[in-house]
Amino acid sequence: MARLVMKFGGTSVADIERIRRVARHVKREVDAGNQVAVVVSAMAGKTNELVGWVQEASPLYDAREYDTVVSSGEQVTSGLLALTLQNMGVDARSWLGWQIPFKTNSVHGAARIEEIDGSVLIERLEMNQVAVVAGFQGIAPDNRISTLGRGGSDTSAVAIAAAINADRCDIYTDVDGVYTTDPRIVPEARRLEHISFEEMLEMASLGAKVMQVRSVEMAMVHNVRTFVRSSFVEPDAPELMNTDQPIGTLICDEDEIVEKQVVTGIAFSKDEAQISLRRLEDKPGIAAHVFGPLSEANINVDMIVQNISEDGTITDMTFTVPKGDFERAKDVLEQARGNINYNMLQGSTDVVKVSVIGIGMRSHAGVASKAFKALADKGINIRAITTSEIKISILIDAEYAELAVRALHSLYGLDEK
Amino acid sequence: MARLVMKFGGTSVADIERIRRVARHVKREVDAGNQVAVVVSAMAGKTNELVGWVQEASPLYDAREYDTVVSSGEQVTSGLLALTLQNMGVDARSWLGWQIPFKTNSVHGAARIEEIDGSVLIERLEMNQVAVVAGFQGIAPDNRISTLGRGGSDTSAVAIAAAINADRCDIYTDVDGVYTTDPRIVPEARRLEHISFEEMLEMASLGAKVMQVRSVEMAMVHNVRTFVRSSFVEPDAPELMNTDQPIGTLICDEDEIVEKQVVTGIAFSKDEAQISLRRLEDKPGIAAHVFGPLSEANINVDMIVQNISEDGTITDMTFTVPKGDFERAKDVLEQARGNINYNMLQGSTDVVKVSVIGIGMRSHAGVASKAFKALADKGINIRAITTSEIKISILIDAEYAELAVRALHSLYGLDEK
Repeated sequence: MARLVMKFGGTSVADIERIRRVARHVKREVDAGNQVAVVVSAMAGKTNELVGWVQEASPLYDAREYDTVVSSGEQVTSGLLALTLQNMGVDARSWLGWQIPFKTNSVHGAARIEEIDGSVLIERLEMNQVAVVAGFQGIAPDNRISTLGRGGSDTSAVAIAAAINADRCDIYTDVDGVYTTDPRIVPEARRLEHISFEEMLEMASLGAKVMQVRSVEMAMVHNVRTFVRSSFVEPDAPELMNTDQPIGTLICDEDEIVEKQVVTGIAFSKDEAQISLRRLEDKPGIAAHVFGPLSEANINVDMIVQNISEDGTITDMTFTVPKGDFERAKDVLEQARGNINYNMLQGSTDVVKVSVIGIGMRSHAGVASKAFKALADKGINIRAITTSEIKISILIDAEYAELAVRALHSLYGLDEK
Repeated sequence: MARLVMKFGGTSVADIERIRRVARHVKREVDAGNQVAVVVSAMAGKTNELVGWVQEASPLYDAREYDTVVSSGEQVTSGLLALTLQNMGVDARSWLGWQIPFKTNSVHGAARIEEIDGSVLIERLEMNQVAVVAGFQGIAPDNRISTLGRGGSDTSAVAIAAAINADRCDIYTDVDGVYTTDPRIVPEARRLEHISFEEMLEMASLGAKVMQVRSVEMAMVHNVRTFVRSSFVEPDAPELMNTDQPIGTLICDEDEIVEKQVVTGIAFSKDEAQISLRRLEDKPGIAAHVFGPLSEANINVDMIVQNISEDGTITDMTFTVPKGDFERAKDVLEQARGNINYNMLQGSTDVVKVSVIGIGMRSHAGVASKAFKALADKGINIRAITTSEIKISILIDAEYAELAVRALHSLYGLDEK
């Protein structure tokens, strides 16, 4: 017997037929003797419809009213799933954010979770009642509904799992796990049995769309074992019955991963634009002069590379910004030119960031140099490099993206045997 | 300056364009210096959609989950109207049932109002903030959302008006007031300036579809002056600006009505079926034997006429039931025949109930006999008669319905001059 959280997204609950399918997944776990809390999103398309109305009503909307309107989508699904479960003979009830209560701060529209009292839910779970929790929503200190921002249902699920001390949080999604890289680019990509929180965080933020970055952070902080699995498999498929090892990827603490890989996966992001400032005066505070104005304009800077010049007076600086902010970033830097004193601004949106990720890197030297050599052998020019303890990110020309990902995937032995 | 409640139904808030129109009505009242609480229904069609999903999910549904799902419709509208008002420069916020709190009993799906704390709303109204209240919903003792039953938004509006001690509760609807009778049948029907609560109750329950019966009862109990008016008039029409007497009908205490009419209106209901039991043994308790089984079967009995026989041993009994319950009522009486001992059951769905209503009847004799004579003059046979202090109801053959209504309307001087 285990205590589980099961999370289903909008496409899994798009209509009553699909909600019935979700209910069968839930029933399977209940029948196996588990205590189950389910977290649901709004029916596919509903949130967009509601957001559309809000914007039509008031382009500069009050986020408190936005939350009141948009949170209704998950409210509907939670009630419908509870009803469907009841109709299958499974005891169930819906829980709205304010009923739990699922307390957040007062930043309506993008609230942070403050405190979740899991005691009432635990009480019901122990009576073998399924708790169907409306995802994405909470209650703010002003006694009004808050929402966690788009895609917040993953975060809700992980937070509920932490609050009720669940053994596992199952994220049912349209893929059957986390892969070593995007299988559309590398057909040999393998599904990972395990991935550590930190690796997943890098994979998620670098473009693998499986889970929201924030929910992985939450899982890491609260050490919630999170299992990514397919919602498309038949709920009563033989391989799901009486098994502790369904198909999927477990995101967990690295201590739980016995056989650590040096490299776990190759991620890439096409949402990067490169900006280079040439012949800057290399004086103290120059970085602040460059990045201060960008930060004020709410532009996120990612990779930053600065080369010192031979005589220490003139330098070049390269960094990346999200593609959508490229033009705005150039404008900001143009206006700040008086303070920055650069000779030339060069930029390109025709770049891609490829990343090699693995907690094993910590204890293995030479991972980076192998990558550089492999790319050089393919004739791929490296525009910028940044590294952290568990990843190496390399900025290259966009046209080489697939070639580089395939080369690195093969290089580190990730191809399926 | 006055404190107003304004209520708008589903067709008035069917889309953002219509919500904007409603907002203009609200803004007019705010600009005139009034404190305003608005009560809104769900967008037209939404409640049916939600109810449909509930029934699809579980034919025998849990009313608590029904309430969770269905109440979302009003939640959405309240947020959207608040946003629209803000966008017009009017300070406004939405209020959900649990936020006020709008306390009801625990009969989910058809809850009765227990207590509404108006203090928080009053506080905001006095700060000139418009309160946009989600109609139809409250919070039950189990801390879950309750709903008042279909059409409950009228009741919500009147209850909110009572709680905040409003000067008037304006019900915006698709007609511009309460008429002496249905103008589709009698083109000479006149809009009433005033009608007393009791008269309106009779008019409403006898088939005038303007307001829910329950909301009129609530208005009567709490003495809420309720004004029925058109939502189709342009919100900034000249006749609505700077006037204390817009077009509509005020439902109020009879003391407020200076010039009392003997007859205020003629109502009629086609939703009646007649059942006659012939040659019943006339012994004590016979009525209980007839109506007990009907009551147990949840069949409402309306007009009841019992004639005593010459020798006091055999009687006939006639009564009406809703048309939809006719076949069921006959079955029930057939099964109870052993206890009731009637000789024959006759019935007809081809009947109509016509009612003459007026508080002036209390002090005027002869109203009824005038009606009987007028119907006789037209050759209309009377099947049954019941009377109360302020109304006379007459059951006749359905084919004479329009003729009878027109005759009575003219008889009591109700035709427009």
